[in-house]
Amino acid sequence: KRSYNVTLLPGDGIGPEVVAVAKDEKLMGGAAVDAYGVPLPEETLAAAQASDAVLLGAIGGYKWDNNEKHLKPETGLLQIRAGLGVFANLRPAAVLPQLVDASTLKKEVAEGVDIMVVRELTGGIYFGQPRGFGKNDKGEDTGFNTEVYSASEIDRITRVAFEVARKRRGKLCSVDKANVLEASMLWRKRVTSLASEFPDIELSHMYVDNAAMQLIRNPKQFDTIVTNNIFGDILSDEASMLTGSIGMLPSASVGESGPGLFEPIHGSAPDIAGQDKANPLATILSAAMLLRYGLGEENAAKRVEAAVTETLNNGFRTGDIYSPGTTLVGCKRMGEEVLKTV
Amino acid sequence: KRSYNVTLLPGDGIGPEVVAVAKDEKLMGGAAVDAYGVPLPEETLAAAQASDAVLLGAIGGYKWDNNEKHLKPETGLLQIRAGLGVFANLRPAAVLPQLVDASTLKKEVAEGVDIMVVRELTGGIYFGQPRGFGKNDKGEDTGFNTEVYSASEIDRITRVAFEVARKRRGKLCSVDKANVLEASMLWRKRVTSLASEFPDIELSHMYVDNAAMQLIRNPKQFDTIVTNNIFGDILSDEASMLTGSIGMLPSASVGESGPGLFEPIHGSAPDIAGQDKANPLATILSAAMLLRYGLGEENAAKRVEAAVTETLNNGFRTGDIYSPGTTLVGCKRMGEEVLKTV
Ligand SMILES: CC(C)[C@H](C(=O)O)[C@@H](O)C(=O)O
Ligand SMILES: CC(C)[C@H](C(=O)O)[C@@H](O)C(=O)O
Repeated sequence: KRSYNVTLLPGDGIGPEVVAVAKDEKLMGGAAVDAYGVPLPEETLAAAQASDAVLLGAIGGYKWDNNEKHLKPETGLLQIRAGLGVFANLRPAAVLPQLVDASTLKKEVAEGVDIMVVRELTGGIYFGQPRGFGKNDKGEDTGFNTEVYSASEIDRITRVAFEVARKRRGKLCSVDKANVLEASMLWRKRVTSLASEFPDIELSHMYVDNAAMQLIRNPKQFDTIVTNNIFGDILSDEASMLTGSIGMLPSASVGESGPGLFEPIHGSAPDIAGQDKANPLATILSAAMLLRYGLGEENAAKRVEAAVTETLNNGFRTGDIYSPGTTLVGCKRMGEEVLKTV
Repeated sequence: KRSYNVTLLPGDGIGPEVVAVAKDEKLMGGAAVDAYGVPLPEETLAAAQASDAVLLGAIGGYKWDNNEKHLKPETGLLQIRAGLGVFANLRPAAVLPQLVDASTLKKEVAEGVDIMVVRELTGGIYFGQPRGFGKNDKGEDTGFNTEVYSASEIDRITRVAFEVARKRRGKLCSVDKANVLEASMLWRKRVTSLASEFPDIELSHMYVDNAAMQLIRNPKQFDTIVTNNIFGDILSDEASMLTGSIGMLPSASVGESGPGLFEPIHGSAPDIAGQDKANPLATILSAAMLLRYGLGEENAAKRVEAAVTETLNNGFRTGDIYSPGTTLVGCKRMGEEVLKTV
């Protein structure tokens, strides 16, 4: 048995509950703003950088919503992504056979959906300079941001996406807005030119507005999607909701080397925090991704995933995925049931 | 009877078919690139500006997909929007009782959905400067665009949206990414400050990623949505697809004064162009919006809309909205059936 150093960042809202297995926690998000006056204390980033992998619960809440930018929990999240260099965000959205009814889509449209969104995470409009507030030539206030990608930023995320597609069903769809944006034109050009390195992968391109439609019209047409930071933010959330059970969905953010960041895709749900109602499965499945992509422990990852499947087969459900005929349990109990079966 | 001067721009693909009532047509889009070497000839823009309203079919096609930016049909569309100053794009997405089965959403989720997306159309990342291609400090190629909004650009679209909400169910949801983008922070600040002028309207704010989810989870929560150009592009297409019948959906783009631009939200569908398969109802309903918002002819608009409803009630369907038990007709016949009942 090897031992690993995993940094746990429970965060805010239901974050601490869903990460309740926590050892070696560090503060980040609103909790850190309250305790240290910054959303990502240096000590937290240093601990994360020195560890083998980082598991994050969720951050943010009403309390900090109107904070200035440098005191927003979200800013801490962007800082830790940048600080760890985790440019590739993998977001699976699969409809589990046990939960197909949770989708708002018709059964025949939802069943079998199995999409992986590969989102660029440390570039684009989230980080582009210049950004800020200014005045235009009429003396009016303006707010501005820069969407910018360099060739190497596009190439590295594209390679990750091709590799991911290769381990899946061999289809990659690159999503952009190359009919309008120069940043997207470069994106499409680079993605297209890398295709020759992956002749076994079927590559297609789609405009982002069409992708937002096609995900609803016929989500089964997608296998792996690769896209920029902001389009990935929107489309991965849309894809998640197709499953009807975002309380189930994990994510992995990885870089070229160094620890990865693993987190459920759901938010901190301040409205239900502390009530033992949250679904811990997304975090548990994030821990499985941590084992797989962060530590290379494929077998352990599979064991965790199998335990989640068995727990669902045993009929246990938190409120967000409950349906008549199943057993309603709280966050803590759900975690215990999974542990029992691992 | 007053007479109006309406400029018809059939465009490309199925555009000419769906606008087959055309008189006084001018070329734009790929057709104009082929004939004049530019996607929006001066003569077309001048005619449009001098008219009372402009009806556009659809533009674009494979043939021009790899053209340089100044020779793309899409560029012509952006130029005519800017040239007419039509900053407010109104995109209704309503599920018609006759067509509820066309939605991929479960019936109980789809029925009764009636959303109006008010999209800012002449600003933001579509038009922001600087934009283009460059080199970064490592000498690598970059592509970049600027998302920028001024206070007055935000204010004028927000006022339109509040007015629209007032004529509907009195609820306005402003969508942004104010937890990350400065352009969105200014957006949220201005929208919030205008709310006091519209005390009868219930205003809420939502992040764009959450909006992409909520549209699928529970679309009935939305009445009117106001958002920027790029988010509006994505969310209005997503909202349209919820109805399952984008061949039915019109749009109106209006400015402070001058002619408005009216167009179906569907594209030019080059794969079915010239086969008499397209659904002309989106264009006919765009003509109804033209009568209402462009010419102030509310009664005429209602007559056209009633004729469309009656034609559907009579069981006529083009292929995109066909279901067993209805009568399958082509584009031309569908148009004739509507005309008969006006
Ligand atoms: C909280 C926010 C900054 C973040 C993002 O936009 O990346 C979130 O929406 C996500 O997708 O992880
Ligand atoms: C064709 C394209 C430039 C256009 C846009 O992005 O505005 C289209 O998608 C639309 O929504 O009208």
